[in-house]
Amino acid sequence: MWSVDADAIESITLGAAILGTGGGGNPYIGKLRALALLNQGKRIDVIDPDDLADAAHVVCCGGMGSPVVGIEKFERGDEILDAVRAVVDYAGVRLDAIIPAEVGGSNSIEPMIAAGLAGVPVVDADAMGRAFPELQMSTYLIYGVSPVPAALADEKGNVVIFTGTISALKMERLARACCIEMGATAPYASPLMTGAEVKRTAIPRTLTLARHLGDAVRGARQAKRDPVSAALAITGGQVLFQGKVVDVERRIAPGFARGRLRLEGLNASAGQHLEIDFQNENLIAWLSSDARIAMEAGGGTVAPVGREKPIAMVPDLICLVDSQTAEPITTEIVRYGLRAAVLGIPCSEKLRTPEALAVVGPRAFGYDLAYVPLS
Amino acid sequence: MWSVDADAIESITLGAAILGTGGGGNPYIGKLRALALLNQGKRIDVIDPDDLADAAHVVCCGGMGSPVVGIEKFERGDEILDAVRAVVDYAGVRLDAIIPAEVGGSNSIEPMIAAGLAGVPVVDADAMGRAFPELQMSTYLIYGVSPVPAALADEKGNVVIFTGTISALKMERLARACCIEMGATAPYASPLMTGAEVKRTAIPRTLTLARHLGDAVRGARQAKRDPVSAALAITGGQVLFQGKVVDVERRIAPGFARGRLRLEGLNASAGQHLEIDFQNENLIAWLSSDARIAMEAGGGTVAPVGREKPIAMVPDLICLVDSQTAEPITTEIVRYGLRAAVLGIPCSEKLRTPEALAVVGPRAFGYDLAYVPLS
Repeated sequence: MWSVDADAIESITLGAAILGTGGGGNPYIGKLRALALLNQGKRIDVIDPDDLADAAHVVCCGGMGSPVVGIEKFERGDEILDAVRAVVDYAGVRLDAIIPAEVGGSNSIEPMIAAGLAGVPVVDADAMGRAFPELQMSTYLIYGVSPVPAALADEKGNVVIFTGTISALKMERLARACCIEMGATAPYASPLMTGAEVKRTAIPRTLTLARHLGDAVRGARQAKRDPVSAALAITGGQVLFQGKVVDVERRIAPGFARGRLRLEGLNASAGQHLEIDFQNENLIAWLSSDARIAMEAGGGTVAPVGREKPIAMVPDLICLVDSQTAEPITTEIVRYGLRAAVLGIPCSEKLRTPEALAVVGPRAFGYDLAYVPLS
Repeated sequence: MWSVDADAIESITLGAAILGTGGGGNPYIGKLRALALLNQGKRIDVIDPDDLADAAHVVCCGGMGSPVVGIEKFERGDEILDAVRAVVDYAGVRLDAIIPAEVGGSNSIEPMIAAGLAGVPVVDADAMGRAFPELQMSTYLIYGVSPVPAALADEKGNVVIFTGTISALKMERLARACCIEMGATAPYASPLMTGAEVKRTAIPRTLTLARHLGDAVRGARQAKRDPVSAALAITGGQVLFQGKVVDVERRIAPGFARGRLRLEGLNASAGQHLEIDFQNENLIAWLSSDARIAMEAGGGTVAPVGREKPIAMVPDLICLVDSQTAEPITTEIVRYGLRAAVLGIPCSEKLRTPEALAVVGPRAFGYDLAYVPLS
């Protein structure tokens, strides 16, 4: 058990926003909310999953919806606890701990806020080791925890509890419909688990990973070393591409930030383009040679010397960071002109099983691609 | 207290479908389901609202969504009881009786089915004295009963409970979003009331009215008397228009049957057209002279001799029936060529107060019209 202080918040929000692969909610807003909670004198304690009692009651929670909307529509502050309480009260159990669903800028922080308000610890684990856009994309649910009871609660006082469902995907669709009615973002609580279920299904110690990653990047910045190299050393990742953002298509539909961004290569990537499709999070990175692009655009006679090909795909992590500072560039703030390094980070082995790939692999997002793991 | 038999089902579905003003769900399907329940040996008992104990727990229930979808997407049979049980279990009370929300072809029957399955009586009353398309359009809610807890349950096993809401309208919007996700129809349960609240807010004895209306129409048919006149004698209504359906625009958006139908005048209405806007139920009837229509269509020089004007509007009842048999013509089955009498029936005084008109008057449906009551 360790306690989160302001310095840890700085590192966790930085590291989690890198690992959030573009999504997981705006890190700056998440950081401000956590610091405000600490300033109110609340404690945020982090418990290792192995220290949970097998019979403990643990509720997962986070923010749902479009991160683009999340930067304009602010929380009241404690509505996430309304969602958590709706679940534990419906189930008639005592809340022992809270656990994140994902690693992401604000979605690593939201469970800490709920835990701080409820006076219980937050578990050092999550269900993705990254961020994903939909509720069923969770190792808790993939490995058999029931998605219900689940709850949504908004900042105005609307509360919805999902008590029966035919599948985790259907629960996602019903909750998404309510989330959109609540203004395209809302906090949710689901699933309710035992400590034993957490140990069996969660990806452990990802808050610690986010903190170490943030510490490493901050340390490199202060020591005038390369922050991107520091991030790679912690995560075991590689630089997939270096370039400038030259185009962003983004729309809010329905209840997500969906789109595509394009980077023009610089340095080692000169002469190439990279396109990244996203749904809140970055999904697939497609590499093209400039010769092929020139041929398509101009109708000229240049022979294609490179084919558009996916070089990284879900569930592996595709992370945009500022090429100088390693500051994460999330999908709601990415824009023309930013100089970025695109990092490829291998995902957890829990996401690479056949049952997990059916839910979080490229086909689950509508791409007719077999998953090719990052080496 | 009286028991519903097969003959009463015939009359209630006929009478309720007339009073449903085009909506309330397909009466034929409702009838078949109620008869099947009686054939299984279940009892359906009807209790007068004045016979309810003040402390009794009464749950309102019915079918939500588009009647057009309702004729293709069948119920499992007992999912409405899932919705009722979700509400009473959440509230931790014992169910004493069930009450309809509206008078309508299948929505007068659904609460009987829930009551028969639960072994409790159904109350001879409703919250509209007709049908309306949205959940907040209810005298229970208009006169202060809390809309939550409310529940939706579908035929597959998905169950959603609404436990907090800022308004009846917001509860409608959240439930509508889930209803659409459930396939555009789903049974709902809301509100939970005491017997005292029922007596204060309900429109009493509308099942009896529907039964008497059905009896009168069936009796006139058998005696070779005019069924339309028989219907008017029971309801205090008038014939607004006689004509042939010459056009129907209908779309399912979102979670409703919306559109407009046009009748060409016959007999006393010759030389005129009537247009009726509907959202599940008939909302406004607009009368035009043929001279004005010819001028608009052909660009001719005929001077307008009549202006398009509303001759009946919500919350008064605008009911299409077959001109020979008084068989109700609901919005999901109305089509070109049908010969219809359009009946105008004054609504309950409980719908004519300022607080009711704010929820069920023409402005609540988006029309910039002051309510003019049917004389």
